[in-house]
Amino acid sequence: MRRRERTVGFEHNGIEIALGRNMTLCIRLLAFLMLLTAIPAFSDEGMWTYHDFPRELVKQKYGTDVTSAWLDRIRTSTVRLSGCTASFVSPDGLILTNHHCAAACLDENSTSEKNLVKDGFLARTRERELRCGTQVADVLMAMENVTTKVEAATRNLDDKAANDARKKALTQLEQSCERESARARTGPLKCESVNLYAGGQYWLYEYKRYTDVRLVFAPEEDIAAFGGDPDNFQFPRWCLDMSVLRAYDSSGRPAATPAYLRVRPDGPKVGELVFVSGHPGSTDRLLTVSQLELLRDVTLPQYLLRASELRGRYIQYGKTGPEAHRIVQTPLLYLENSLKVERKLLDALLDDRLLQRKREEETALRQKLASEPQLAASTGDPWGEIAKAEQIERELSLPYTFLEAGAGFNSKLFGYARTLVRGAAERQKSNTDRLREYRDTALPRIEQQLKAPIPVHPDLEKLTLSFALERMREWLGPDTNVVRQLLAKDSPDTLAARVIDGSSLADPQVRMRLWEGGQKAIDASHDPMIELARRVDPQARAVRKRYEDEVEAPVRSASERIARARFRAYGTSVPPDATFTLRLNFGTVQGWTEGGRQIEPFTYLSRLFERATGQEPFKVPDSWLAARDRLDMGTKFNLSTNNDIVGGNSGSPLIDAEGQLVGLMFDGNIHSISGAYWFDPEKNRAVAVHPAIMLEGLRKVYNADELLAELGVK
Amino acid sequence: MRRRERTVGFEHNGIEIALGRNMTLCIRLLAFLMLLTAIPAFSDEGMWTYHDFPRELVKQKYGTDVTSAWLDRIRTSTVRLSGCTASFVSPDGLILTNHHCAAACLDENSTSEKNLVKDGFLARTRERELRCGTQVADVLMAMENVTTKVEAATRNLDDKAANDARKKALTQLEQSCERESARARTGPLKCESVNLYAGGQYWLYEYKRYTDVRLVFAPEEDIAAFGGDPDNFQFPRWCLDMSVLRAYDSSGRPAATPAYLRVRPDGPKVGELVFVSGHPGSTDRLLTVSQLELLRDVTLPQYLLRASELRGRYIQYGKTGPEAHRIVQTPLLYLENSLKVERKLLDALLDDRLLQRKREEETALRQKLASEPQLAASTGDPWGEIAKAEQIERELSLPYTFLEAGAGFNSKLFGYARTLVRGAAERQKSNTDRLREYRDTALPRIEQQLKAPIPVHPDLEKLTLSFALERMREWLGPDTNVVRQLLAKDSPDTLAARVIDGSSLADPQVRMRLWEGGQKAIDASHDPMIELARRVDPQARAVRKRYEDEVEAPVRSASERIARARFRAYGTSVPPDATFTLRLNFGTVQGWTEGGRQIEPFTYLSRLFERATGQEPFKVPDSWLAARDRLDMGTKFNLSTNNDIVGGNSGSPLIDAEGQLVGLMFDGNIHSISGAYWFDPEKNRAVAVHPAIMLEGLRKVYNADELLAELGVK
Repeated sequence: MRRRERTVGFEHNGIEIALGRNMTLCIRLLAFLMLLTAIPAFSDEGMWTYHDFPRELVKQKYGTDVTSAWLDRIRTSTVRLSGCTASFVSPDGLILTNHHCAAACLDENSTSEKNLVKDGFLARTRERELRCGTQVADVLMAMENVTTKVEAATRNLDDKAANDARKKALTQLEQSCERESARARTGPLKCESVNLYAGGQYWLYEYKRYTDVRLVFAPEEDIAAFGGDPDNFQFPRWCLDMSVLRAYDSSGRPAATPAYLRVRPDGPKVGELVFVSGHPGSTDRLLTVSQLELLRDVTLPQYLLRASELRGRYIQYGKTGPEAHRIVQTPLLYLENSLKVERKLLDALLDDRLLQRKREEETALRQKLASEPQLAASTGDPWGEIAKAEQIERELSLPYTFLEAGAGFNSKLFGYARTLVRGAAERQKSNTDRLREYRDTALPRIEQQLKAPIPVHPDLEKLTLSFALERMREWLGPDTNVVRQLLAKDSPDTLAARVIDGSSLADPQVRMRLWEGGQKAIDASHDPMIELARRVDPQARAVRKRYEDEVEAPVRSASERIARARFRAYGTSVPPDATFTLRLNFGTVQGWTEGGRQIEPFTYLSRLFERATGQEPFKVPDSWLAARDRLDMGTKFNLSTNNDIVGGNSGSPLIDAEGQLVGLMFDGNIHSISGAYWFDPEKNRAVAVHPAIMLEGLRKVYNADELLAELGVK
Repeated sequence: MRRRERTVGFEHNGIEIALGRNMTLCIRLLAFLMLLTAIPAFSDEGMWTYHDFPRELVKQKYGTDVTSAWLDRIRTSTVRLSGCTASFVSPDGLILTNHHCAAACLDENSTSEKNLVKDGFLARTRERELRCGTQVADVLMAMENVTTKVEAATRNLDDKAANDARKKALTQLEQSCERESARARTGPLKCESVNLYAGGQYWLYEYKRYTDVRLVFAPEEDIAAFGGDPDNFQFPRWCLDMSVLRAYDSSGRPAATPAYLRVRPDGPKVGELVFVSGHPGSTDRLLTVSQLELLRDVTLPQYLLRASELRGRYIQYGKTGPEAHRIVQTPLLYLENSLKVERKLLDALLDDRLLQRKREEETALRQKLASEPQLAASTGDPWGEIAKAEQIERELSLPYTFLEAGAGFNSKLFGYARTLVRGAAERQKSNTDRLREYRDTALPRIEQQLKAPIPVHPDLEKLTLSFALERMREWLGPDTNVVRQLLAKDSPDTLAARVIDGSSLADPQVRMRLWEGGQKAIDASHDPMIELARRVDPQARAVRKRYEDEVEAPVRSASERIARARFRAYGTSVPPDATFTLRLNFGTVQGWTEGGRQIEPFTYLSRLFERATGQEPFKVPDSWLAARDRLDMGTKFNLSTNNDIVGGNSGSPLIDAEGQLVGLMFDGNIHSISGAYWFDPEKNRAVAVHPAIMLEGLRKVYNADELLAELGVK
């Protein structure tokens, strides 16, 4: 399970350019579904914020007191990684997360001679720990509600002006927050605005950021992802999907992390109350019907077709030789995960019962609204406004996806080039006038990524870029302006080869010279990838501008009014949709019933060996085969719970009422995917690595005594 | 435009095994849509049978008399090829069709040294014409209505028994028809049953079959398919999508074909009345709402995901070397055509207005039915019965697609193996007890295909089979019985390599020995592909049986009752859905309006050269570049008409009121694809090659004087 990303463009790009992709998906509406639909008493649905955690509900249902001190400790032991979650598990900055959350770090530290993804890694001393080039580790230290400030900035403005003013206000708030924190006792914090309830609430979340993160331990991929893509989102399961990192402070010392979680070696009991703390990426439970229809009709089918073809290209390329096989593994893994998720999301939306229920919910809210004439008058018809905007989004979808979201230029080097070209132009403007991803508070992260010596594989770059150009020609049409310009005398293959072979952007020093040289350096550059990015930038910016003015602006405005109507009708005792910000949820250890058959919540080591075929992805690595006789076959391996999680929760700690770590979330069952739209308490289950198998492996397979000692378990 | 095939399994299989795929799609219901929805007077919708051609309507609208003699002449000049149409254009069996309809023949006659697909071919003497190994040419000689005979065979039987009895009756009717024709003056004919109006009518169509078809002429693919996949289903267009074949009689002499079409060199005028005679493959205009929903939710998305990935694998494989590039071209061309069609079909079904209109039509018919209590009582609730059967089809869809329809075993060699394994078992049974595709009247065609020396490319076979096995594991799940058995100690790659490297079925003599050796030879065979086919056959047959009994039987029964209710309500003055049987339609030469812009109905040679990029697929071949100065740049190239056609009409003659050939159909515009569900008179257009460009090319580029002389044009 990974955080959901619905673009094939840039998907293995080292630079996380905030490209404004899937803006529709970022618009969240206040939860009211659960109130309308009579939640069964046993449902533990809800990705709750730490500032509005329902302590009373937990007390009532489970008799457990969740104290403020407990919440503070769990919050400060939870870590945000790129697209994942993790937790501190020692006082010296030791971080536990999934293997798949460390895949990029393992990949960038691998070469054709030394494949860490496949073979694993163990640093027996701190000196041997390996730097992860672009990884950061964030810990949420404070949260401030700034809703009234943002509302003041947009009051009485029309949709478009309000949309611009809102962005400026958020940029200013973040900037002054960072300035103040730098002067304060806490030391400098990263301040990020958070939009909850689709504009119903705005917050500033303040993070302590560690920019020096190193690799301590990872098992072999064959045991971390046993069953590979076929088993992904399946349970029962046998994956040791773990890795260990360490955060270092700015002076190069292991971070001091007193609020760490202790591991409970025997794990939780069946039915025991458990919590998951983490960063669920994105849910769409509160979109309007017209927004869901857009996903069903346009966004998901288009993504799935492109991603399926790219999968075929990756797989076939991987068969051309061992080095090709090695370098394609990590992007393929990401892609196949997304494919499975998006395919199941489309299935969910094609189930007419889902849209029917959403329609009924919309009707119910409209009726409530109609009974209050004054509110109704000030609310207008936001559903109709969104539906109208979605018609424009349908038209803009293809050019936006290919030109602005990057699906037409799928290449790491193009990602660097766009960042450099846009960064130069944007930094000449005042902070609040820039595209939001180039605001001052975002620049240090961009520089970190430009500086990082991430390997670039030219053959793979050509594959993805040629594919992207070919599909852009297909979907936009060969007679579209941009296609005609780029491919007047070129095929996708010849153009891709020329710009990739001719570019020097794989060299971090070249990138940093262009970054530091600003607009003058960019104007003077003859790097063909810079030239390509320069050439398509006006058209990409134009479609983004249309999108922001004609889709984003009216949708944000309408969504805020729907949110207000909902607050009025149903109150605030429900959690907002997931937004890759910190949440806490509760549930219990339990299986479920599938086709009349009871699925037990635990799996055991013995079955791993029985299930192995000797062929990837069902191959047990040699280290485990060699240790087989020493291993306790009754060791618990993976477990399932009914916690309400989603991609982004990968690597989250599963925690007992005492605050001990009793599992490591790494997946959900197949029914959990439709949790993006509605939570099914009967079938939606989260899946974790059991502490017992982690300790058994570290002890008997990897002989990782130093690590065990630091974990305090031996 | 090609005939629609919705399976990725076997799709480049030389053997056309009738695998009963997409049975739902074969069920056609009587047209009533047009009567309900007030066709505008200018609509020329309708793929009419020759026995019910609306002569009065043509007379009223266009003042033209369509005589019986004219119909007979056009019918006997029209030729059915595998998946395509063609026409006789000389008294000596000369056949005009599309380049893409001869692609399989060009491909099988090519080697790594001599690439006929790419370089084209011209036989200046009859001795140099090349045999097409599996091509047959059929001419429809007679049609007999056997509805009452079929109805008598199924009367008073329950659904399942009626379904079995119907098949037996059709097998018997075909067999006695062939026996009688062999004794008659006409000589032996092929008799095939035809189901029109979803069981509203049954016919026997009797064909004269030529099994010796040879290649005379084909231009280079770069000019035949200029613009390639990006331009497919686009107009304006510049494709010389033509080829010339010749039918030979059983004594090896060119066939005598007095009823041939003469070419009219200047082509038709704008607005002129024109006819298309041909074999439209399949439309779904009269399916019930639940059948359309199944297509939208299950059939199309599943197909598109598999086909997209296979496209990526093909493309990437084609980049590994010139021979790989050559052998993958034809299957890739087929696949990309299907992908574009199915993608647009899904778009059409995702437009809620379509399903809404179909729902309204269903309601209207139900209301009419309710007003006749006796008919209503005998009709029952066929819509409900179909919806119930579709629920079962949803469950069976994946195992049926992978095991029975062959998506799990995508390989030419597996196709041969299954034919041999099943053929041996089935031929031991009495003719009427067999699977229908092994009835006696079908055996000569199977033998022709087994005997033909079609090239088999082991690398491509491994690619498709490994892909198929991998997706079967993904979609059915690694713990399904069949997957666990096949892949217990194998990966998809290792299994595919073993059975393909170990098989001798690429040798026609080996195949014929196994065919002639019957069950004993099959039992004794250790060919690993035969073993694989033997091993999965029980499970494949089991899912087919369930499908036939639980889906096909109730759907056929219910469809017949809906057809009867429709006949009663709306009469019979509407054409049935397309079924790859002979149809004739009328229309006029015209463009259309796209986004406010008028699209003219003709394109001209000059623009071809302007549009070329020098890179495939926008590359003009050297022969045309060399002849450029001699060519008349004002020559008409392609044209559009409003004839109602669909895949299977490829290669159809476009005919004027005098019965002269005024064009060669090869495609439709992008709006024509949704013609599968409804005909849009404003935008649905057919696309043809203009006679002028065919003659200009033959004369000045190919110097094909012999051919021009035989065509009687110079």
